[in-house]
Amino acid sequence: MGAERQSPKILNSQNPKIRFIACTVAYDGGPFCGSQRQNNGRTVQGEIENALQGVLQHSTPITLAGRTDAGVHATGQCFRFETDNRIPTERMPRALNAKLDKAIRVLDAREVDESFHPRFSARSRTYRYIIDNSEIASPLLRSIAAPVGGKLNVAAMQRAGESLLGRRDFAAWQSAGSPAKTTVREVKRLEIKRRKSFDLPLIEIEIEADAFLYQMVRNIVGALIWVGQGKLKDNDVRRLTEGLDRTKCPPPAPPQGLSLIEVQY
Amino acid sequence: MGAERQSPKILNSQNPKIRFIACTVAYDGGPFCGSQRQNNGRTVQGEIENALQGVLQHSTPITLAGRTDAGVHATGQCFRFETDNRIPTERMPRALNAKLDKAIRVLDAREVDESFHPRFSARSRTYRYIIDNSEIASPLLRSIAAPVGGKLNVAAMQRAGESLLGRRDFAAWQSAGSPAKTTVREVKRLEIKRRKSFDLPLIEIEIEADAFLYQMVRNIVGALIWVGQGKLKDNDVRRLTEGLDRTKCPPPAPPQGLSLIEVQY
Repeated sequence: MGAERQSPKILNSQNPKIRFIACTVAYDGGPFCGSQRQNNGRTVQGEIENALQGVLQHSTPITLAGRTDAGVHATGQCFRFETDNRIPTERMPRALNAKLDKAIRVLDAREVDESFHPRFSARSRTYRYIIDNSEIASPLLRSIAAPVGGKLNVAAMQRAGESLLGRRDFAAWQSAGSPAKTTVREVKRLEIKRRKSFDLPLIEIEIEADAFLYQMVRNIVGALIWVGQGKLKDNDVRRLTEGLDRTKCPPPAPPQGLSLIEVQY
Repeated sequence: MGAERQSPKILNSQNPKIRFIACTVAYDGGPFCGSQRQNNGRTVQGEIENALQGVLQHSTPITLAGRTDAGVHATGQCFRFETDNRIPTERMPRALNAKLDKAIRVLDAREVDESFHPRFSARSRTYRYIIDNSEIASPLLRSIAAPVGGKLNVAAMQRAGESLLGRRDFAAWQSAGSPAKTTVREVKRLEIKRRKSFDLPLIEIEIEADAFLYQMVRNIVGALIWVGQGKLKDNDVRRLTEGLDRTKCPPPAPPQGLSLIEVQY
């Protein structure tokens, strides 16, 4: 993709014309190899940076609030970039959406202070996981919900989820491959609700935390599904957390059920 | 696809071993050129007949309750076939789903009388149309909802819809290309509801009729959207119906918002 990009114009941050713009973006993670730019394969970052280059007439890197894996969606992801192009901020969403694949939609844009950082300024993030609890999962929601047929004890899942609330060491819920300096995180909210949408028996799990470890939500949801199925007791989740040992935990839930729905600043 | 199929075994309907089986099937219409078998292109019928041939070890044509256009979905379509294979009926959904693309799921199977015909035995059909009324439509629902941003007056749409209830000549709402013997149909129910799903402001339109003309639902929904947008008055829909002139009507709503959700017998 490098060949398509113009040679970067050096932006001088002392330049008074430089503006810092933050956008909210939604995307279907299905067609992409994750959010972060890679040398091979389509990524959300790569697509947005290419669209920005077309709109701004210069290349500019974006910073995303959170990294999402291949197949994981977002409805409230945030990115920031800088530019000296004078295009009015409120025109950015439409200008970018005209160049972006329909799988990515920029929802809004606002000018921010230079000190605003999508990742470091965030107070917390909220993810939603959607389970299609139909006996035979609907083909219409197969790209945004994980199919889990059979009886699921949502009350037991909720009890297990409550044992994760608060500031704790979540080492047991971190997948290998992207180690964090500390594995202590604060889960502020974990809600599990049955919800009928389009006549389908869905289960929605929302988790808010100050920040998440690598694949932490999918690992937690994988364990909650086992609790719902009776393969684990609700107390086992607390024990798994305290054991700090990822190898003792159930496998992660599949990516397509997961969306980053909000970044709180 | 003919080359892939075995030469048909002639089933003799006097053969006491022959069973007639009806299945409920759901599909994402996106990947298919409609429900009806064609010589070129993937169709729902073609995919199901190929899967049946694999399961039954003989080819058998299916009859569908209703024809759906390219891109139109179903959550409650019905098809019938006949076989002398002794596979238990209750095993059919799992056996077929193992061979089918994930975009098609057979939900149930039941043995029916030879006189049961998915199309002619049906008392009525119900379609649902989903509008994503977000200012910028969500990329996550783009395959199952039609994007219509801006203000929509649902009360006016509902009033316009009520003028379509009852037994009438729906010639104005039939697209060219698939003429019916009579254009009189009975619309039994038309409901329009705002519904929040996944935090998105959706509008769901459900229409039940004894039968539908070609593209009748999409043509009606196209007009209702114009009423919602104020481009037509609610009374105009009655006048358009009475005019019997398709050329005076608004364009059809796009296919991806439409699903055949139930066939009533």
